[in-house]
Amino acid sequence: MTEVRRAAEAARDAAQHVATLTTEQKNDYLRDLAGALLAAEEDILRANTADITYAEEDGLSTPKLKRLGISAESLGQMAEALRQVADLDDPVAQVTRDQTLENGLRVTRVRCPLGVVMMIYESRPNVTIDAFSLCFKSGNACILKGGKEAQESNEALAEVIHATLRKHDLPEEALVLVGAAGREAVAELLTFDDCIDLVIPRGGETLIRYVSENSSIPTVQHFHGICHVYVDPEANLEQALEISVTGKTSAPATCNATEAVLVHEEIAAKFLPDLVAGYHEAGVEVRGDEAARAVDPAVVAANADDWGHEFLDMIVAVKVVPDMDAAIDHIRRFGSDHTDTIVTENAETAAEFTQRVQSSCTLVNASTRFNDGFQLGMGAEIGISTSRVHAYGPMGLEELTSQRFVVEGAGHVR
Amino acid sequence: MTEVRRAAEAARDAAQHVATLTTEQKNDYLRDLAGALLAAEEDILRANTADITYAEEDGLSTPKLKRLGISAESLGQMAEALRQVADLDDPVAQVTRDQTLENGLRVTRVRCPLGVVMMIYESRPNVTIDAFSLCFKSGNACILKGGKEAQESNEALAEVIHATLRKHDLPEEALVLVGAAGREAVAELLTFDDCIDLVIPRGGETLIRYVSENSSIPTVQHFHGICHVYVDPEANLEQALEISVTGKTSAPATCNATEAVLVHEEIAAKFLPDLVAGYHEAGVEVRGDEAARAVDPAVVAANADDWGHEFLDMIVAVKVVPDMDAAIDHIRRFGSDHTDTIVTENAETAAEFTQRVQSSCTLVNASTRFNDGFQLGMGAEIGISTSRVHAYGPMGLEELTSQRFVVEGAGHVR
Repeated sequence: MTEVRRAAEAARDAAQHVATLTTEQKNDYLRDLAGALLAAEEDILRANTADITYAEEDGLSTPKLKRLGISAESLGQMAEALRQVADLDDPVAQVTRDQTLENGLRVTRVRCPLGVVMMIYESRPNVTIDAFSLCFKSGNACILKGGKEAQESNEALAEVIHATLRKHDLPEEALVLVGAAGREAVAELLTFDDCIDLVIPRGGETLIRYVSENSSIPTVQHFHGICHVYVDPEANLEQALEISVTGKTSAPATCNATEAVLVHEEIAAKFLPDLVAGYHEAGVEVRGDEAARAVDPAVVAANADDWGHEFLDMIVAVKVVPDMDAAIDHIRRFGSDHTDTIVTENAETAAEFTQRVQSSCTLVNASTRFNDGFQLGMGAEIGISTSRVHAYGPMGLEELTSQRFVVEGAGHVR
Repeated sequence: MTEVRRAAEAARDAAQHVATLTTEQKNDYLRDLAGALLAAEEDILRANTADITYAEEDGLSTPKLKRLGISAESLGQMAEALRQVADLDDPVAQVTRDQTLENGLRVTRVRCPLGVVMMIYESRPNVTIDAFSLCFKSGNACILKGGKEAQESNEALAEVIHATLRKHDLPEEALVLVGAAGREAVAELLTFDDCIDLVIPRGGETLIRYVSENSSIPTVQHFHGICHVYVDPEANLEQALEISVTGKTSAPATCNATEAVLVHEEIAAKFLPDLVAGYHEAGVEVRGDEAARAVDPAVVAANADDWGHEFLDMIVAVKVVPDMDAAIDHIRRFGSDHTDTIVTENAETAAEFTQRVQSSCTLVNASTRFNDGFQLGMGAEIGISTSRVHAYGPMGLEELTSQRFVVEGAGHVR
């Protein structure tokens, strides 16, 4: 038996244990872990500094470096996030239906954990804490494979998680962190459909494709976000400007950042110069089609690759469209079913847009940055699903569970 | 482009059309189809007779032949099922959450179709009607591959479905029936993750394994049912007898039929002779372990393959267990997460059993045959999922949809 196989089986056994914990046991553990993280600040920051140093040598882009970094402040936020997860309702054993049928059968539907959740994700180390805590709270064990850039940080975080599990007499394999020998281990893990119940690949097209082609385990894709803003002729242009600019600048390297703005031609001459100026003032490069450049020569010529591209950087694409049909066609062709916004004061136009653009989150007069579990009132999220099966949009605690039927009769037969 | 590829792309286009139909349009179609099926009785029964003739020559077992047959009566039931699906609530566009957050953002969650659902199933031709009608009502197109034994029957049914689609100006590819060149077509279809959103394989282990290893499309498994009845010492033995016997005899070839009865040793001497007599009287062969045979020599010696076997025939396995732990261990080892029942008058024992045995449906004092969408009050079902991701247990209309977020702001940014 390989070491990877042994770890997967241990995770499966740990999952049976975690599934039976009471809400109080889980919350005590999570609150204790929050304190333990803060107490381990020195070790964690040292490990993170090592990761940052390697990454700088490798020439990682500034927004990516920013995502990788842990500060005393962001560690405090991780601890706070753990306490918030402890405060969330426990979905396990929740009864979502309780109905007595005419024949007297009592039919209930009860939430249950999925089992073992495996997640493959990019470089942000706080995802390690978020993913583990949400899996744990929802009664699942987890196998985590973070980006190699964050390896030392993730190992330091996992050490604290494991030490706290031991302290609470819980199986360490409630979290299995896949080590540096990542690729081979992942390939092997993806064949263990008897140990792993769900795989969540979070990242770019190559990863998603690799997982869906090599895994015999159910998969929920957390694909990249090619998020669009469509500015209708009946838009409040002040709102359109702020939604477009902050949608990019407030966190350019996140999946819900705005990557492209589609402007109706009727308002292009009026709106585009302000839009471009707003972006430039914020330090964002604007790449546009010919029509956009005709209105404002400060726009850089976009090439074909710039449409449907997740820049994850201070770059945005801008295009002039003749009507909403063209905007929707563009979104269908280049979008990723992640997040799309319309800015309009016309309720009918808005309703048509949200009916026809069935992204995981379609917004009216609000920034794409709101597609986020916290912002949508779900308390937390493990990521944003862009596939419709099992979960679509932000996945919170409920989306990490399933529902089973429990039926009580009195000798009922048929 | 291959013919199969062309069909898959046509289904994807058809799905966009079906997704936008109003509830009334869908219901009108379904009610009209019910009439058209009855009007085509002669053609359908002729095709079915041809299937039956081939199957008899191939030596298909009696219960399997029974599943394959269509009579005037069962055709009437198919038409009635269509009318019932028309009467069910349309899940599409249902709002499952509507909340205005403190910052004024209105967050709604709206049910949406999955897109194209592909189902691979066994020989019952009524499944063709059920699967198509449920996919259609939930706004999805479907690609169906039935058992080769039912090929002529399925083609006759599909002809009526297609003619009625044409009559309603709807795209025929709302149903794509995979023809006789089945295996190669299925292998090709399983690679089209840009056209097909969900695959539902329904049947035995070989099929399930084949699909999960060869598909890059999300899959919900409808595995076979290895359904157990555990008879506790505190059982009402009259109920235990009726639950065990009818659980096998009322429909021996269905996935929710009882395949094994586990009897606590304390009541074995008292209960087993009645149980065996009851089965024999109904024409069921009883295979048992040594302990069961010691109590009642009329029991045939079970071999190792009889545990965890889906007989789909008038055969049942019986085993004596020392306690509930042993019963639960047996169910975990040989069960299929489908359906398991405890018979007991002790509420605490029942609660422990339903907590520890987390099958898609766990019952107390009721036949395993109740794990069925109609019987559990869901109105209909496309099958019973034994995997926890997306749906677990009977899949009705809701389980053929997803939920997306629609958010309304007033210039909200973050």
